[in-house]
Amino acid sequence: MQKTCTPAATEQEMLCIFGTGDLGRSLGQRLFQTGYKVVYGSRRPHSCGPLPPGTQVQSMIHVAAAQSARLVFVCIHRENYNFLETLAPQLKGKVLVDVSNNLKKNMYPEANAEYLQRLIPGAQVVKGFNTLSAWALQNGPSDASRQVYVCGNSLEAKQAVIEVATKLGFTVLDRGSLTAARELEDFPLQLFPEWRLPLQLATGLTAFFFFYLLIRDVIYSYVVNDKDISFRIMASLANKVFPIVSLIMLSLCYLPGVIAAFLQLYRGTKYKRFPDWLDRWMLCRKQLGLVALALASLHVLYTLIIPIRYYVRYRLAAHTISQIKENKTSPFDTTMAWRTDSYYVIGILGFGLYLLLGITSLPSVSNVLSWREFSFIQSKLGYLTLFFCTFHTYLYGWDKFLQPSSYKWFMLPGYMLSLVVPSVVLVLKLLLLLPCVDSTLTRIRQGWERTDPEQERKKLLLT
Amino acid sequence: MQKTCTPAATEQEMLCIFGTGDLGRSLGQRLFQTGYKVVYGSRRPHSCGPLPPGTQVQSMIHVAAAQSARLVFVCIHRENYNFLETLAPQLKGKVLVDVSNNLKKNMYPEANAEYLQRLIPGAQVVKGFNTLSAWALQNGPSDASRQVYVCGNSLEAKQAVIEVATKLGFTVLDRGSLTAARELEDFPLQLFPEWRLPLQLATGLTAFFFFYLLIRDVIYSYVVNDKDISFRIMASLANKVFPIVSLIMLSLCYLPGVIAAFLQLYRGTKYKRFPDWLDRWMLCRKQLGLVALALASLHVLYTLIIPIRYYVRYRLAAHTISQIKENKTSPFDTTMAWRTDSYYVIGILGFGLYLLLGITSLPSVSNVLSWREFSFIQSKLGYLTLFFCTFHTYLYGWDKFLQPSSYKWFMLPGYMLSLVVPSVVLVLKLLLLLPCVDSTLTRIRQGWERTDPEQERKKLLLT
Amino acid sequence: MQKTCTPAATEQEMLCIFGTGDLGRSLGQRLFQTGYKVVYGSRRPHSCGPLPPGTQVQSMIHVAAAQSARLVFVCIHRENYNFLETLAPQLKGKVLVDVSNNLKKNMYPEANAEYLQRLIPGAQVVKGFNTLSAWALQNGPSDASRQVYVCGNSLEAKQAVIEVATKLGFTVLDRGSLTAARELEDFPLQLFPEWRLPLQLATGLTAFFFFYLLIRDVIYSYVVNDKDISFRIMASLANKVFPIVSLIMLSLCYLPGVIAAFLQLYRGTKYKRFPDWLDRWMLCRKQLGLVALALASLHVLYTLIIPIRYYVRYRLAAHTISQIKENKTSPFDTTMAWRTDSYYVIGILGFGLYLLLGITSLPSVSNVLSWREFSFIQSKLGYLTLFFCTFHTYLYGWDKFLQPSSYKWFMLPGYMLSLVVPSVVLVLKLLLLLPCVDSTLTRIRQGWERTDPEQERKKLLLT
Repeated sequence: MQKTCTPAATEQEMLCIFGTGDLGRSLGQRLFQTGYKVVYGSRRPHSCGPLPPGTQVQSMIHVAAAQSARLVFVCIHRENYNFLETLAPQLKGKVLVDVSNNLKKNMYPEANAEYLQRLIPGAQVVKGFNTLSAWALQNGPSDASRQVYVCGNSLEAKQAVIEVATKLGFTVLDRGSLTAARELEDFPLQLFPEWRLPLQLATGLTAFFFFYLLIRDVIYSYVVNDKDISFRIMASLANKVFPIVSLIMLSLCYLPGVIAAFLQLYRGTKYKRFPDWLDRWMLCRKQLGLVALALASLHVLYTLIIPIRYYVRYRLAAHTISQIKENKTSPFDTTMAWRTDSYYVIGILGFGLYLLLGITSLPSVSNVLSWREFSFIQSKLGYLTLFFCTFHTYLYGWDKFLQPSSYKWFMLPGYMLSLVVPSVVLVLKLLLLLPCVDSTLTRIRQGWERTDPEQERKKLLLT
Repeated sequence: MQKTCTPAATEQEMLCIFGTGDLGRSLGQRLFQTGYKVVYGSRRPHSCGPLPPGTQVQSMIHVAAAQSARLVFVCIHRENYNFLETLAPQLKGKVLVDVSNNLKKNMYPEANAEYLQRLIPGAQVVKGFNTLSAWALQNGPSDASRQVYVCGNSLEAKQAVIEVATKLGFTVLDRGSLTAARELEDFPLQLFPEWRLPLQLATGLTAFFFFYLLIRDVIYSYVVNDKDISFRIMASLANKVFPIVSLIMLSLCYLPGVIAAFLQLYRGTKYKRFPDWLDRWMLCRKQLGLVALALASLHVLYTLIIPIRYYVRYRLAAHTISQIKENKTSPFDTTMAWRTDSYYVIGILGFGLYLLLGITSLPSVSNVLSWREFSFIQSKLGYLTLFFCTFHTYLYGWDKFLQPSSYKWFMLPGYMLSLVVPSVVLVLKLLLLLPCVDSTLTRIRQGWERTDPEQERKKLLLT
Repeated sequence: MQKTCTPAATEQEMLCIFGTGDLGRSLGQRLFQTGYKVVYGSRRPHSCGPLPPGTQVQSMIHVAAAQSARLVFVCIHRENYNFLETLAPQLKGKVLVDVSNNLKKNMYPEANAEYLQRLIPGAQVVKGFNTLSAWALQNGPSDASRQVYVCGNSLEAKQAVIEVATKLGFTVLDRGSLTAARELEDFPLQLFPEWRLPLQLATGLTAFFFFYLLIRDVIYSYVVNDKDISFRIMASLANKVFPIVSLIMLSLCYLPGVIAAFLQLYRGTKYKRFPDWLDRWMLCRKQLGLVALALASLHVLYTLIIPIRYYVRYRLAAHTISQIKENKTSPFDTTMAWRTDSYYVIGILGFGLYLLLGITSLPSVSNVLSWREFSFIQSKLGYLTLFFCTFHTYLYGWDKFLQPSSYKWFMLPGYMLSLVVPSVVLVLKLLLLLPCVDSTLTRIRQGWERTDPEQERKKLLLT
């Protein structure tokens, strides 16, 4: 019985490949090097074009090839699948591995593998190997191509394919039945779909604040004071834009959660779907947070190079020299020391927590956490991070809002603008933490529903 | 045969859910959205309360529901399991998925799933889905809820559940037979159990050193010199406390290993269990080290902001001004340059190695290392890190121990206290590296045992 | 049928261990603690030496032991395997778990497990548990010993072993048939094989540039100017060596890809194997890059401590004092401000991208990326990183190459040497991006081959 269960792909086993395009030839070369006998199916015998050099693979006509092997790799374009229908008798009971990919998403109503299964119902179609790069198909596992995803309706057929993939050095992930084929075919086509919105947002906000502050700081100074301080664009201006955008994006991570909570409170149930925009917003919170973390890290580095910048050194020296020349020394200001130290320290602590949030969102770390632990970090520590970063910004502002020089050309300073969203989020969160609100929300999230008398009546009529 | 092996859960398959609480309704909503037909079991027909909106699920009496489906999800509290006993004939041969969780650990002598299996011996009980968050049960995989753990005695039943979980988008980890159910039921209840001790230790040490240094530095200065330097609490004091606690905790990572080695040498065998406290200590070394790394990172950030602090800038300027006023310039001190540069550089190298240790303890990194590689890094590089960090602290001290001003109120400076444990650990480790000691220890660790003549005699009598 | 499929290793199941060395006793202790009955096989009854204390395991003669259990763990050295041949009748149909390891790689022509299978063809040999550390074998999973790799020809036998391993708390990775045994036996012996070359290169380059700059800066100053600036070795010199080596190594990551592209263009096909040296070079690009990142991080830390160094503070103060004494203030130089700020900012951006490359090469991150995403980051962003870092170095140089003082003793400054390789790589990459070259290369990489008329003729003759 064991023999029939395990395919036990011995070194001598014959594998058949349909298709001598890039895909088929790369795969054939690799299979051959791993010790398999490889045969190519072609329309005419010995007509399959230049085969992988040194592989000494055979090329047979399709019928013979299909009969010779138990596993057939289908490495041809979907448009050419229909000729396979004629081979249905030979392919009966065989394992067909669909390696194909499409050029675009949603080109066809059904997945290639499902279409293949429909064409040849007698075969056991397995989708697999399509998520690998051409390099990995030809040379074996490399960084993003370590895992082979397979799916198929037959457990046995999948086992046979898993055996081959494992022997080629890949780690195999079984994605279930053939209905997952669509997902597998879409995977290689994606290019950071969930990062697009956060990156666009970051770009937009960065551009806006850059030009806003350019006008307010550099151009204002040039026009009004006739002073060219354009050199500040490189470091000083960027070091204002980055933390502003970072703080706004961090608060945008927590805003949808707060909105969702109020929506659930208003609706009195958690089983109604959120509006689409809220759903999409909630699904990209992680990416929003990571982009914000990247900007915060840049802010940290920009801040730490301050003392080695020529401009800063020049100004400090000039200040010392002027003090001596005017023969007056400013006394030590303890309030100033407290304030600036607090400002830096709160910033450091906020950034430290921020890094912790980033580290726990690494897949391998979040996988070993229970969701209670994960939500503790991402929610409790997350709000603490937001609080620290907002407080850091308030300390930066301090009493600047009292100085008329802060309102050049009636434009608010950047840090004030950046405080709007986080302050709103924190206030709303505080409201949600009020005991009466919190207990209602907890009950709703545990499945309790506020029922209208109206609905109650209807239900009674139904039962 | 293939058909009987693979459950091949087609889109049309009917799934039954017992329980219309939060768990049952969230799961039902998700299953329905994924394309399954869902039926709820209830005591009376159509009495199961408000079902997920738009799901159009049926609600049958329990008997009918149990008969209609091959997979039955049990989403009710353990206290209500006994009514299931009456359904034993209908549930015979069915796959029962126990999704329940308890409110506390160790509430019952046996796991819920094992209790269920005992109640209905004819069914195939599989534990699963219980480690997911309510959010993930309702909306699909999210960060810490990507993996579904399943366990059960029947391979077939598990396959059927795995198929469903995979279709819902989760990655499935098979944890073996039903005896693992207890572990799975405890998982969602845990909140960083192994971090508790290290965090408590870190908090305790931080508090102690904070107040110690507060008295020694700030209060002493206020009482004796009548000078208010309280502003130093925010940055200067914290930047003393963090590295002190970090160094002590790093050395506490390596102390238990050294103690264990001496214990093995003394006992002459590695097969005797260590005392419980040592076992528990050794199991939290990783967490000790990571907390120490976090504190060391804060120390680095606190150090790097030194030159932008108001207090530091003020003092530097004041020093320059006083030099000019008194018209004497201190000559350049090459020893001072060597010493301070070495101090910083050793610190940087220690921190760099420290980061390396941290990175290799990420689950995905340590998984790809062989244990020989892992122990090379964590042991060899670990001791090197400890040596660098200890040396960094000695360089900081330099000849300060000669100055009477270091012993205010007979209190030793903080850095001296922090050097005690690491110095002891390094000396003990050096002893263990002596060739004669090392060879004996190696033999013991390879299984060799020193035998008492006494024991030898006993054994001879026995055989 | 289910019963025969699942081994269902109940707590009462008897496991047999051959070998009472370290391996056998550690494993036995652990199995016993997990609830298994353990029996040791020995030549004479009750003669197996001191067994794990408190385990109350039995010890039988080999024949009886082999008969008593379905799973037999073979924990003896390969040299002693031949006695097992005499037990072939008793071991028929049993699952033999080969836990052995060798002392060196390639000691024997075939893997231990394959040799065992050949000796006892009637048994079902499974390789497993050998990749665990002795600590993990005795105490359960720990960091780098969480995963048990198994391989074997019988699916059933593997299931039985997987069941045991899972119950011991390990995660099991099925590596396919017994041909993978060799790989599993080599795994515990490896010590960063793929890191050796990059680390040697880094060490060599570091040593070279250290002595080069030592002569050029420190010794030159001592000999020619009679000035001892040896204190600069610790920080200033290291902060020149690290970025130089880092930049060279980063560019060496991208050089082989460029060479490969030109080779493919020249050959007109992608199916010919690259020369061995190029293959080996390409396989260690990731390690090259990570070592370069480590050096770049050190460069960043060394740079950030500049303002707190005694030497720097002294020089700044001396500069201020001399300005006052000579009563002349240097005017603010806007070009200087632009240049230095740009220099720092480009460096920060380069380092930020560099970190991003490092993070995406973490196994758990690269696993969730599609290869299209991975290659976007590693290739597109990688070249951008290289460009930024090279530009950063050019900005550092600025007009220094015009000053005769840059060529002490006819030795070029270090930064110039470091610019050679990256500049070459960037220029070659630019050539490859020319539309005509790019389109040809893309076609070749998609499988197209340039065919000589010569070859064409030959092929026609063949078919």
